[in-house]
Amino acid sequence: MTHTDPISLTSDLIRCASVTPANEGALEVLEALLTPAGFECTRVDRNGICNLFARCGPKGARRSFGFNGHTDVVPIGNLEDWTQDPFGAQIVDGIMYGRGATDMKSGVAAFAAAAIDFSKDLPDDAALILAITGDEEGDAQDGTTALLDWMDETGEKMSLCLVGEPTCPNEMGEMMKIGRRGSLTAFFTVTGKQGHSAYPHRANNPLPAMARLMDQLASHSLDEGTDHFDASTLAVVTIDTGNPATNVIPAQTKSTVNIRFNDIHSGASLSQWLNDQAASVAATFGVEIDVQIKVSGEAFLTPPGELSQIISDAVMAQTGRRPEMSTTGGTSDARFVKNHCPVVEFGLVGKTMHQVDECVPVEQISQLKAIYGQILQDYFA
Amino acid sequence: MTHTDPISLTSDLIRCASVTPANEGALEVLEALLTPAGFECTRVDRNGICNLFARCGPKGARRSFGFNGHTDVVPIGNLEDWTQDPFGAQIVDGIMYGRGATDMKSGVAAFAAAAIDFSKDLPDDAALILAITGDEEGDAQDGTTALLDWMDETGEKMSLCLVGEPTCPNEMGEMMKIGRRGSLTAFFTVTGKQGHSAYPHRANNPLPAMARLMDQLASHSLDEGTDHFDASTLAVVTIDTGNPATNVIPAQTKSTVNIRFNDIHSGASLSQWLNDQAASVAATFGVEIDVQIKVSGEAFLTPPGELSQIISDAVMAQTGRRPEMSTTGGTSDARFVKNHCPVVEFGLVGKTMHQVDECVPVEQISQLKAIYGQILQDYFA
Repeated sequence: MTHTDPISLTSDLIRCASVTPANEGALEVLEALLTPAGFECTRVDRNGICNLFARCGPKGARRSFGFNGHTDVVPIGNLEDWTQDPFGAQIVDGIMYGRGATDMKSGVAAFAAAAIDFSKDLPDDAALILAITGDEEGDAQDGTTALLDWMDETGEKMSLCLVGEPTCPNEMGEMMKIGRRGSLTAFFTVTGKQGHSAYPHRANNPLPAMARLMDQLASHSLDEGTDHFDASTLAVVTIDTGNPATNVIPAQTKSTVNIRFNDIHSGASLSQWLNDQAASVAATFGVEIDVQIKVSGEAFLTPPGELSQIISDAVMAQTGRRPEMSTTGGTSDARFVKNHCPVVEFGLVGKTMHQVDECVPVEQISQLKAIYGQILQDYFA
Repeated sequence: MTHTDPISLTSDLIRCASVTPANEGALEVLEALLTPAGFECTRVDRNGICNLFARCGPKGARRSFGFNGHTDVVPIGNLEDWTQDPFGAQIVDGIMYGRGATDMKSGVAAFAAAAIDFSKDLPDDAALILAITGDEEGDAQDGTTALLDWMDETGEKMSLCLVGEPTCPNEMGEMMKIGRRGSLTAFFTVTGKQGHSAYPHRANNPLPAMARLMDQLASHSLDEGTDHFDASTLAVVTIDTGNPATNVIPAQTKSTVNIRFNDIHSGASLSQWLNDQAASVAATFGVEIDVQIKVSGEAFLTPPGELSQIISDAVMAQTGRRPEMSTTGGTSDARFVKNHCPVVEFGLVGKTMHQVDECVPVEQISQLKAIYGQILQDYFA
């Protein structure tokens, strides 16, 4: 059995300064390793964004295990703040430093190495798919979505997909992510009529309506949470009027509300509720309330099942920890993959991601490769 | 009986460019007229502000009728917007133009002329007092208060006082003012704890507390009004946070509330109420709420009595109108005089005050002098 080294592969990737959306040779490093190992590699670039699709085994295989990840990284910030070259992949006391060390060149290296090593044992009717993008940290308009669009068009299919993002808060193996809350931002503008504060009956102050509406929204309990999700949350993040004159009633005031919601709700159901609340308060106070809503992402869940069970068992076997099935945290490309197939995220400890001196213990990269390898063995067993 | 011309006196005063707090010879114009007429004139200047105290009749007279007014004016604004010289006192079609034409050089001229003419008929045990300031439109720190302080120190006393400010909204004789609402401004700062809007339980959002507090204050009915006062009003004039990030819960938010209150309340009673409301909401939400209160003026009332009756009868006789006894409008030096003696305000139509092309029909100046003259006759009859 071949042993592909995920640590040197991580180093090679970190040395490509692929600050989003630049590629800087990162996907070529992977192609150069995957092609000789029997993977059919296709570049699925779109609008200048580089993406790599690699498959081992037949197209349209009955069972195909997918990995998803990204090789682009966030900017380094202030270079002087780094104690190591952010693109040097220097190893100091067993710790490798560099932008992307945890998010997520190590994850890509670990699943690529695991896939290459396992490919020799792949059943004839099965496939391994790697869908790797150079546009996750940026707009994400032409990254994983481009790969999924192309797969739909060409009949490529993953039975399920593991996203290799860092998911563990503190200790290796603590947590996998089986879904995410949705996120919605609502922008309210309440318009009344300006006037002198000594004669409020001649004006129509928008601020009491704003206060009532924000109180009603903030006081409302959206839900109590579900088996796999925390309770949805609503945060009034700003109310602004900008009126410097104490003797003037302003004509207008604005506010912004952010909602993180579980799968009891949808962007559409919450938009309806927000518009109803605003209309009711507008009628009570005789003001106009404009509501603009931006849904950044819908809630999604891959209910505990085959994939999460295999991950859980593999993590337990390799780390002695049974990972929590969480739906917390920010956004990731899993929000796109969930439209294609069941998706779960599991990766290493994300503590230093996006920070200066981002780093990863090299041992954790090997451990992650071992976990991914065992997942493949168990899935195809 | 002498006939002092209030129109030429108004002209002379307008030609002094006494933009607050400048005097530019305005008080000297009055002194030059009052001294030969038998008035004892004393300049009561303080901190560079010019004020004039003039008395005809003995100091400490049993009955002394006071007039109060100011010779300073607000700035002219943009000179190009004026169709007449703002300090020219040009008369066009019976209308005199100039800054201070209504507010209130014509009022000062009318009561000075009336006082001079009436002084010949003044009973021996009576006095006429003119307390004229050059600091009403500005800070008003060293204006009428300086005159009243000096009067207290030197034993000068007015039995009652008529402030000659313009009080009629549209027609001569419509309205006198027997009091004013008080004004208070409260500045609220609600402080919680900043955090990520995806994890509101780790933060402490000050905005729901702010919304609740502002809703409670704005919904509260302070009173139903009194015989002489409209209902007190409360206006939330601004709520501001200045948080541009939709994924951040802010640490702090601020608001401003302006209250115009009648004599059911005082600055102290309202401050107590506002602090109680804030403390209650702070306890409910577990936030800190700082309240800073500025009382600009207490409510005051000179209940209908001798002075308002004499004014009412004189106005009725001269104009055929019975003036309303009002407590509406902005602030004036009556708020200081009310601590010294009963005070009522009556003057001409204030429509053009503080505007470009401020102007007064010259006939109205004569009419106002006649009203003031009749008031003096009736009071000392």
